[in-house]
Amino acid sequence: MPKIVDHDLRREQIVQAMTEIIIRDGFEAVTMREIAAEAGYAHGAIARYFPNKRTLLMAAFQTLHQGLHERVVNDTRGLRGLTAIEAICRQTFPFGDAGRREAKVVVAFWDRASHDEEFSTIHRENAIRWRGLFRTHLDEAKDDLGVQADWDTAPIVDQMSTQTLGWNLLAAVAPDLATDEIMDRALTAMLSGIRVLRAAK
Amino acid sequence: MPKIVDHDLRREQIVQAMTEIIIRDGFEAVTMREIAAEAGYAHGAIARYFPNKRTLLMAAFQTLHQGLHERVVNDTRGLRGLTAIEAICRQTFPFGDAGRREAKVVVAFWDRASHDEEFSTIHRENAIRWRGLFRTHLDEAKDDLGVQADWDTAPIVDQMSTQTLGWNLLAAVAPDLATDEIMDRALTAMLSGIRVLRAAK
Repeated sequence: MPKIVDHDLRREQIVQAMTEIIIRDGFEAVTMREIAAEAGYAHGAIARYFPNKRTLLMAAFQTLHQGLHERVVNDTRGLRGLTAIEAICRQTFPFGDAGRREAKVVVAFWDRASHDEEFSTIHRENAIRWRGLFRTHLDEAKDDLGVQADWDTAPIVDQMSTQTLGWNLLAAVAPDLATDEIMDRALTAMLSGIRVLRAAK
Repeated sequence: MPKIVDHDLRREQIVQAMTEIIIRDGFEAVTMREIAAEAGYAHGAIARYFPNKRTLLMAAFQTLHQGLHERVVNDTRGLRGLTAIEAICRQTFPFGDAGRREAKVVVAFWDRASHDEEFSTIHRENAIRWRGLFRTHLDEAKDDLGVQADWDTAPIVDQMSTQTLGWNLLAAVAPDLATDEIMDRALTAMLSGIRVLRAAK
């Protein structure tokens, strides 16, 4: 009888091995041989699923992004306005050891995305999707706070998006400047800043 | 008579060639051979100044950072408070074609910095220096706006720093989301947000 191979499981294990190496040594240092060793497979077995490092980085990023997306959907269920925004940021800011680890994969992906069209398209689409989510909940916050419709949410969406990117970068490069305590304080200040906008009207 | 070689000029030309290639094709694609061709030197001439890609990326980043620093010193001369902060952000946000080009070098540097101790130390030191500058001018802004001393500038410094990082990333990866117009609007909103903090007191 032929051996039954669970291809999805293998794919997942290979992506996991790639992710671990990026976190430990960086994307540039990754070799297909090292991924095979880390995953416990023969070199040929890797190439069967992923022809090169590039496709593996793409898969690692998308696995991570999919996990993030699911956690956000789960955590924002039934929430609206600033409460929903806080729940999103608790996931998209790199809180905890897991967040700081994942940030390294994200930064490796960004570097590729700055000169690889397929990667930059994915980044762009993700960015637009997250901004849409922020915008929706900011519109709810406007209703909740009783702010007039002339209050422009666009620059606030920009500020939230760029802060999210910035925290991930800091977490990957200078984690002592992006501790949970520091991010917690910044997130609270960001949300109060929006509440204050109303008070100023 | 021996030929007189201007080593500083050569070094500068090589760094310039490296910078152009990173902007065009990304750091991963750079080869020492390509840099030599771009700079118009023999392969051996490059290695004499820079033993490898890594030292060249470091030099390219530091040249860029030095230029930024000089422009900021120049533009903030005699300014204080929020006016000084706006002048800084006009340089540190990736405005203009030059800003969007430089952002690609910055992102390549960041990716290395996430797993190279010497690079991450430089990033950390720069980050701390910029934050110090923001903090000084925010303290002046507090005086200017007549805000009480209990107003905590730390989270605002964090927000400014992370937004600066985020805009550079967006400019490198999705430049249509970081046009001058969009960044201008976000910068204005950020500064009004600080002014509003006073009104809310």
